[in-house]
Amino acid sequence: MENKYQPITIKICQEIIDIVGENNFITGDLDKLEPYSHDEVADKAFAVMPEIVVKPTSTLQISEIMKLANREMIPVTPRGAGSGLSGGAVPVFGGIVLSLEKMNHILEVDTENLLVVVEPGVITNDINERVKNLNLFFAGYPMSVEACFIGGNVAENAGGGKAVKYGVTGRYIMGLEVVLPSGEIVQFGGKRVKDVAGYDMVNLMVGSEGTLGIFTKIFIKLLPLPKTKADLLVLFKTPEEAIAMVPKIMTTAGIIPTAIEFMDQLSIKTACEYLNESLPYEQAGAMLLIEVDGTDRKMVEQDYECIGDLCQENGAIEVYVAPNHTTQERIWAVRRNIAEAFKVYSPIQSLEDIVVPFASIPEILPILDELSTRFNIVIPCYGHAGDGNLHVTAVKKPEMSLDEWNAIEKSFLIELYKEVIKLGGSISGEHGIGSKRSEFLPLMMNPTVIDLQKKIKLAFDPNLILNPGKIFPQVHEI
Amino acid sequence: MENKYQPITIKICQEIIDIVGENNFITGDLDKLEPYSHDEVADKAFAVMPEIVVKPTSTLQISEIMKLANREMIPVTPRGAGSGLSGGAVPVFGGIVLSLEKMNHILEVDTENLLVVVEPGVITNDINERVKNLNLFFAGYPMSVEACFIGGNVAENAGGGKAVKYGVTGRYIMGLEVVLPSGEIVQFGGKRVKDVAGYDMVNLMVGSEGTLGIFTKIFIKLLPLPKTKADLLVLFKTPEEAIAMVPKIMTTAGIIPTAIEFMDQLSIKTACEYLNESLPYEQAGAMLLIEVDGTDRKMVEQDYECIGDLCQENGAIEVYVAPNHTTQERIWAVRRNIAEAFKVYSPIQSLEDIVVPFASIPEILPILDELSTRFNIVIPCYGHAGDGNLHVTAVKKPEMSLDEWNAIEKSFLIELYKEVIKLGGSISGEHGIGSKRSEFLPLMMNPTVIDLQKKIKLAFDPNLILNPGKIFPQVHEI
Repeated sequence: MENKYQPITIKICQEIIDIVGENNFITGDLDKLEPYSHDEVADKAFAVMPEIVVKPTSTLQISEIMKLANREMIPVTPRGAGSGLSGGAVPVFGGIVLSLEKMNHILEVDTENLLVVVEPGVITNDINERVKNLNLFFAGYPMSVEACFIGGNVAENAGGGKAVKYGVTGRYIMGLEVVLPSGEIVQFGGKRVKDVAGYDMVNLMVGSEGTLGIFTKIFIKLLPLPKTKADLLVLFKTPEEAIAMVPKIMTTAGIIPTAIEFMDQLSIKTACEYLNESLPYEQAGAMLLIEVDGTDRKMVEQDYECIGDLCQENGAIEVYVAPNHTTQERIWAVRRNIAEAFKVYSPIQSLEDIVVPFASIPEILPILDELSTRFNIVIPCYGHAGDGNLHVTAVKKPEMSLDEWNAIEKSFLIELYKEVIKLGGSISGEHGIGSKRSEFLPLMMNPTVIDLQKKIKLAFDPNLILNPGKIFPQVHEI
Repeated sequence: MENKYQPITIKICQEIIDIVGENNFITGDLDKLEPYSHDEVADKAFAVMPEIVVKPTSTLQISEIMKLANREMIPVTPRGAGSGLSGGAVPVFGGIVLSLEKMNHILEVDTENLLVVVEPGVITNDINERVKNLNLFFAGYPMSVEACFIGGNVAENAGGGKAVKYGVTGRYIMGLEVVLPSGEIVQFGGKRVKDVAGYDMVNLMVGSEGTLGIFTKIFIKLLPLPKTKADLLVLFKTPEEAIAMVPKIMTTAGIIPTAIEFMDQLSIKTACEYLNESLPYEQAGAMLLIEVDGTDRKMVEQDYECIGDLCQENGAIEVYVAPNHTTQERIWAVRRNIAEAFKVYSPIQSLEDIVVPFASIPEILPILDELSTRFNIVIPCYGHAGDGNLHVTAVKKPEMSLDEWNAIEKSFLIELYKEVIKLGGSISGEHGIGSKRSEFLPLMMNPTVIDLQKKIKLAFDPNLILNPGKIFPQVHEI
């Protein structure tokens, strides 16, 4: 199928204004359109300007816009907070950016059924602010929790810092009201905890990157709020020793920590220097940041002591315990500031989020060393060790020219992805394929599976008007 | 599309024997074919004889059979242990029953990545027997755990007795090797914990009732084995008081129990009389069976004391604590023997597994009373209160004639389902739609959603040869 998208005429603009109102419509003004041309992907080459931006305030308005777009063959790109890292909210074929920023209401807090019903434009952290006095929380915890929208989290199946114990966003999504590309409004799931009637449409929508429908209501399961937590920062001589702790903590100690974050020496060194942090990182080949939480102070103490002892029995150089908020902040600052520290070192980078089976993390590290030498770039490696999800980042050395960087970036990514796939991994654990990685999808997915997924896409969106150019390479060759 | 299935000729039989070998092939002998004509649905009207039964021993054999069946337009019905409760393994269009009973190997126990890789014919409980010495377990726990196959659990997304804390089967499925209806062999997911590349094909396969592909390898996440547990049997005057405890336990006490099972007075009375159990059930309008587990004995004690106190503060008549195996068995015996007790009372029944938002359980109970009077049948109600998943069972009174029963059964189911749907529920929480409930699916699912799901089915199985007649009404009218 060829690209048959049509430009947006003045007549169509007027129709759209009739739907959403003048105040919820942007066109012409490049300064106002520009923020909707990109997400948080560093490379501006991925940015594309929309023809118009609309900010609907209701499900019905979204339905009307989709009917019009479907009739007129105009591409529509849904957008949350724009905090994504794969170009998912970028209108790669122009057309309409449909921003959910005004659909930002917490519609219901159902304390009897332990759930909330929210619109997609709610800031994720606002959900927890709203329910914390009820001793409840939503366990999804992307690192951008204070800025990102819950709709984007669902669309990308966001992971984050608490997935070892609590899993990723999808585990908490009980139901979705969805506007289909045709404009029809349907609901998958709802307030029921279980449901096996037909295929699992809720999980098909979760992580579909805005290509199958636009979420307008999200039913989210809540959990009892843990009342206390503690963090451990554990230094190891080698990454192997560090990673070997992941299954040991779960089997020998029988504990599932909230988080097990990994940092290699390069990441630690750069973050510590950036922060003027005095940790004795010179001897440490790797660090783990381990968090435990629970309802009972004593139990949490027992857990972190048990994990600390186990780490020391298994070769840890040093175990720092952070039982209170101040020390916890100091420890997490090292982990959180890695990305920032490398941006100061050199802003030209490609932030990746590869996944390998977590026991294979030690195997990927010498490969990164080799790639670093071969491509003459810096490659810090840190991330969610308990999930095998690593934010391997290719960083241009300040002395490398932009031309040289542009010449090697793609080759580096292909080499990295091939090694990850050889280990049984994936090219994205939580950021998504979007437009940034679509050309690389065939490296890991065989043509039969890509073909099945394209047929699913076509079942929902026969005219390919919803978020085209995402996930699949050459979407128009279906 | 019309039914264009072809009969199995002698030539095709020979081809199939060439693939699986004479010993793994049954035809002609009605006594040997009969066990493959039904599952555990009580009503024999749902049984259909297969033309042949094959018992492949490898993925490649399954692939060859599917290629042949697809070419010759012969329906194939995959079958696990036959312990299903929706007719899912019944060959409603005849053809081939493909039994996975010889694909029964635990292929790998990966203690570094905390997972097992198994074939679909492994008995679910055997997985836990195999890994318990490693301090690990698989948290899926259908009530038939000692008989059912893991492949069937995945195909139906089985729930069971531990879902409040641990969720249902799907949460633990990390990857699947699948033979597609075309005979192609693909893998979705694997040993990686996270993966957002493309649509979530693993969860699309989970619960698809054998209609999209045949699982040949299943990658299952393991958890630390809880070292201790305790049970509480709590008697309440009214179902309302009992159900109100579900959110209270989670919010006020901050505890997620392993199980919260509900039994209404009729269920308790019948089970107690059957067991000669001396519980003072006369005053109890409802009972909860609450289980807590954990790694630490003291913590579990603290949890059950806290829950017990909370129940008493909220009107419980009596709280029985079962801290050891013997007393736990006594308590669970009441719950487990409800179905058996009613079979002794009257074997003609329809076992349902409706779901409502759990806070709505008190609303469904007077409706059951009314339906019981209107249709002159007995309707015990018990099940997984923490999930809102109730095994409402329609039981023919001994004095009712079979003709009268046959005349009212369907009307009763329609009335029940309509009420459940009004409350935001589903007609099946864990047993599946299969052939037993396919005619009722349109009661809860709008035509657009059914149409989307049929298109997904067609993407995988354009000739509709894999497990036809399941889930969708009138599958050949796609």
